[in-house]
Amino acid sequence: MKKRLHLIIADAELETVPESIRDHPAIVNYARRRKKRPERIILDSTYHHAALRNLEDGERRGRPDIVHVCLLNALDSILNKEDRLRVYVHTRNDYVIYVDPETRLPRNYNRFIGLMESLFEKGAVPEDLKLLRLERKTLGELIEEINADAVFVMHENGNFMEPKHFGKLLTQFWKPVVVVGGFPHGDFRSKIEGVKVRLYKEPLMAWTIVNEVIVSYEWEIL
Amino acid sequence: MKKRLHLIIADAELETVPESIRDHPAIVNYARRRKKRPERIILDSTYHHAALRNLEDGERRGRPDIVHVCLLNALDSILNKEDRLRVYVHTRNDYVIYVDPETRLPRNYNRFIGLMESLFEKGAVPEDLKLLRLERKTLGELIEEINADAVFVMHENGNFMEPKHFGKLLTQFWKPVVVVGGFPHGDFRSKIEGVKVRLYKEPLMAWTIVNEVIVSYEWEIL
Repeated sequence: MKKRLHLIIADAELETVPESIRDHPAIVNYARRRKKRPERIILDSTYHHAALRNLEDGERRGRPDIVHVCLLNALDSILNKEDRLRVYVHTRNDYVIYVDPETRLPRNYNRFIGLMESLFEKGAVPEDLKLLRLERKTLGELIEEINADAVFVMHENGNFMEPKHFGKLLTQFWKPVVVVGGFPHGDFRSKIEGVKVRLYKEPLMAWTIVNEVIVSYEWEIL
Repeated sequence: MKKRLHLIIADAELETVPESIRDHPAIVNYARRRKKRPERIILDSTYHHAALRNLEDGERRGRPDIVHVCLLNALDSILNKEDRLRVYVHTRNDYVIYVDPETRLPRNYNRFIGLMESLFEKGAVPEDLKLLRLERKTLGELIEEINADAVFVMHENGNFMEPKHFGKLLTQFWKPVVVVGGFPHGDFRSKIEGVKVRLYKEPLMAWTIVNEVIVSYEWEIL
């Protein structure tokens, strides 16, 4: 068995437009422009800002861009090319996206959004290859399914550890899970059991943590 | 004096629509939809694919997304927060973008494109703060101006070096320049003198190299 890092982008702010704001003008106009039905659209704070004000947690929702940049960095990493990485996205509404390591994600953001809309509609894309697969699942269920021998949660109130020491620590396990919050600020919504770690004195962007963890682990394992 | 890494995204495929294709239907329609004049628009392979077929190097041009992801990773890095990084973008047509380390880049791709369009129109954005500044300059002139004590060019035919060893090597200089190609494939168009290095047996995406170099340098310098 090969040692492999399992990376979860958790509580990601990736969702289709919730029912309660589907008739908001910001949504209706955007849907019309994109020639899609409002319920098929991915919520995006850049365009749906006015509608988000009417939603709980509106100030942090609608951030598919965070998922996009994290996945680009993870999938194009040396660690992934060496088949030492598995990536998952867990979303606000308890969907889990299983990402095949061979996936070549669209580099263009708008194409990525189109892909996510297909995924939420069809449950898998492309429909034959199923490089991305969507399932209803909580973060806890996903972690249990992975059957990890250690779970680390990247958290601004965690114990400080230098990235290089954290990378070394991860190599002591066969199947470590690292959970990174896929939201712009605030705390995890899901309850997670795991060792809380922070890599810097200030909060970091999700993609910065992904890069630090992946490169530090590579150093030790490859 | 503090040791600092100077990172150049070079020969980046970031440009406004060239004159020869400004009346191509793919451009005209896109410009109309965006309510901008064709010459003010940033060339984008996702939307201008048909027009790009008529251009020299059309199969690699129009990739502002590469610049966007590289800059997000660089500016949000721990290295940049510690004021140990300077980033520059040098483009196909010999423009250089000076990026203030405090710049908070738009996370949304379409907003980033809007910002680049303003930058090419006005020469600096925002006009008062000038966090991004555009100047006509070759890659050679930029490197000379930085006055580096070492220049490394990340190149698929360079000498192989493990990222951690490369990070260590960089710390032996006060002002090392690392040049990363801001294009999807092929070779640099600019003539560059420097030590050619590759970090992996296969070509890597520009943002992967940026992440590897930054995190490996951090390890040694912080």
